[in-house]
Amino acid sequence: MTAPTTWVTGAAGSAYDVDNLPYGVFATADEEPRVGVRIGDFVLDLAPAAATDLLEVAHVFEQQSLNPLMALGRERNAGVRQWIVSLLTDEGERADVEPHLIPLAEVEMRMPIEVGDYVDFYASEHHASNVGKIFRPDQAALLPNWKHLPVGYHGRSGTVVPSGTDIIRPMGQRKAPTDDAPTFGPCTRLDIEAELGFVVGTGTELGGRVSIDDFAEHTFGVMGLNDWSARDIQAWEYVPLGPFLGKSFATSISTWVTPLAALDAAWTDLPGQDPEPLPYLQVDGPAGLDIEIEVLLNGHVVSRPPYRTMYWSPAQMLAHMTVNGATVRTGDLWASGTVSGEVAEQRGSFLELSWGWREPFRVGDEERVALEDGDEVVIRYTAPGTGGGRIALGEVSGRIVPASE
Amino acid sequence: MTAPTTWVTGAAGSAYDVDNLPYGVFATADEEPRVGVRIGDFVLDLAPAAATDLLEVAHVFEQQSLNPLMALGRERNAGVRQWIVSLLTDEGERADVEPHLIPLAEVEMRMPIEVGDYVDFYASEHHASNVGKIFRPDQAALLPNWKHLPVGYHGRSGTVVPSGTDIIRPMGQRKAPTDDAPTFGPCTRLDIEAELGFVVGTGTELGGRVSIDDFAEHTFGVMGLNDWSARDIQAWEYVPLGPFLGKSFATSISTWVTPLAALDAAWTDLPGQDPEPLPYLQVDGPAGLDIEIEVLLNGHVVSRPPYRTMYWSPAQMLAHMTVNGATVRTGDLWASGTVSGEVAEQRGSFLELSWGWREPFRVGDEERVALEDGDEVVIRYTAPGTGGGRIALGEVSGRIVPASE
Repeated sequence: MTAPTTWVTGAAGSAYDVDNLPYGVFATADEEPRVGVRIGDFVLDLAPAAATDLLEVAHVFEQQSLNPLMALGRERNAGVRQWIVSLLTDEGERADVEPHLIPLAEVEMRMPIEVGDYVDFYASEHHASNVGKIFRPDQAALLPNWKHLPVGYHGRSGTVVPSGTDIIRPMGQRKAPTDDAPTFGPCTRLDIEAELGFVVGTGTELGGRVSIDDFAEHTFGVMGLNDWSARDIQAWEYVPLGPFLGKSFATSISTWVTPLAALDAAWTDLPGQDPEPLPYLQVDGPAGLDIEIEVLLNGHVVSRPPYRTMYWSPAQMLAHMTVNGATVRTGDLWASGTVSGEVAEQRGSFLELSWGWREPFRVGDEERVALEDGDEVVIRYTAPGTGGGRIALGEVSGRIVPASE
Repeated sequence: MTAPTTWVTGAAGSAYDVDNLPYGVFATADEEPRVGVRIGDFVLDLAPAAATDLLEVAHVFEQQSLNPLMALGRERNAGVRQWIVSLLTDEGERADVEPHLIPLAEVEMRMPIEVGDYVDFYASEHHASNVGKIFRPDQAALLPNWKHLPVGYHGRSGTVVPSGTDIIRPMGQRKAPTDDAPTFGPCTRLDIEAELGFVVGTGTELGGRVSIDDFAEHTFGVMGLNDWSARDIQAWEYVPLGPFLGKSFATSISTWVTPLAALDAAWTDLPGQDPEPLPYLQVDGPAGLDIEIEVLLNGHVVSRPPYRTMYWSPAQMLAHMTVNGATVRTGDLWASGTVSGEVAEQRGSFLELSWGWREPFRVGDEERVALEDGDEVVIRYTAPGTGGGRIALGEVSGRIVPASE
């Protein structure tokens, strides 16, 4: 396609060109947090730009979360995006707009959304199979329900934190099968889960359902997500009601939220579903996302999970989550579950990379099976942009700090 | 104790005397929803009363949820309660206060709290044992972790609804062990769980923990709670990550929230914990609550679960929920799990009352194993009051309406 070219210095051809334009909430030294959009290495301060243009929806940019913007719905958000593209590509706008461009180095990014409910899925066949093989080597790798529905559960929304937040090693109960009784102490098997997060733009009424076809009407965008996991705590607690304290201490999300419209060129076919799912879960056409993920530990790439290998699509997750009539609200967040590809270098958790803590993996000159205090994890995401290059999604980072006694 | 006597007509000696005083959010025909307190068969409209008295915290009563009131903390809430008692017992206040008493029949009660996270526990030994015996008759009734920690999981906060909301029968996937593949349709095993809910008043910082001793500092009060359950959907989906759509369609809470201070006379010893829990879960003194529960189906009492039989105490649940450093926020809700006593007439779910759908139970002239469309469930709660009589906690009701196709 022939996209217009931006006048913003250094942005054209970068991973943050006008075919990307993720939103975030930023603060400067002397002003309250508010909504901005990223272009190149700048944040465009949207509130004053919208005020100048007498934009009807200008108030949504003066907020401390993206929720009011997201609640505008798909059509009005398409209009907002078009307006931003014209500001950044029309040379005639440059004199008015340039004063509202703030270098990234001068802003502090905040939590971008006010999270309603947070649901975590388990949608990678390779991840679910690996977990099955590690923990139940003598049984079928996948449980009987796994190919019939996207398995998921509710996580803790109050501990979803923005990228860059330190992660305090959790304390808790753990019991090895050979121990007589549980002991209490700092987690000894702290792990990551490299995932993709999705956020609801417009909600539903009680009893309503979001069909596969209505996915884009209700979904605002995507973000990077690391579902920190305390595997020893989780293993002891999770039967029969699922993960609780093993997950609830922290989930990190990127501070930039990429609108769905920026992913128009990223849709790709799912790897294939057999057996065919029930009608409410059937998809037609490209339902997967061709997003490349990189997991870095202390600056070293330790894995490259490809999102296109995911078994269940994001639209299937949303359709399933609401098929019982449960409402969704603006700001509800759901995540894909760990993204793991077919080969060892594509595994999205340390549990898998170390094959159940048995095979330490290289991290530069060191080795790891689980996270140590001081370790820093960065997860990066890129996707094909509509401009022909690749766009970057918000990265998500966190550093492990010792347990507080 | 020698409590002062209220001048409010019909309130003295009733279940809503001045030793009770639950809070709620009410609306009248011509005014916005706001905070009130119940006395006898009236709601005291707190905002105008507080304005007259120039109360510093008057603004918390002009809100559409109890959250700002709850966030005041334990000490300031004790002051608010004392002020209300003096208004309602001092004859000198009567002329000023009586105009702000509104008969219950003239108000509509609304959702009382803005729910942050919702956690459901599984704290009744009789309930957990019954479920074990029904589903795993050839194994130990309790799982290995059950007596070491209060098992719990996160539920959906966006579908917590106020008492009186119709419950739409959920649709979903279910598969009997003998079926080849799952089918889709309306839930055929719709059930209740008679529970008690607890709401957080003041929150914590990331990495903080609420010790057993700090329970009352962080807990605002209690409410009736019915955790509606679609057992056929739950059975098929819940391994390995726990209940999801089988629970997420609706959870009903009472519209009146009883402050913890009203339960001072209700504390009683736990039935006993063996093995002794880890130090962070150890309690000293009366840690259980002597609350009587009545479950009515279509006007007939079908069960009387006694809360004093619960194995894990509310303070243990809060201590466990935060021991990994997870924050709690004002409005976070947690529930006890189904309350079931030792004998059949004390079981808090239809699953147990019908012993796995095999033994229909009497409901007036009819029989039931699970809920039918049109059925109405009411759960009532009473506790010893500090005035020597019994106080009523908010009841929670809901009627089943057919699935929407």
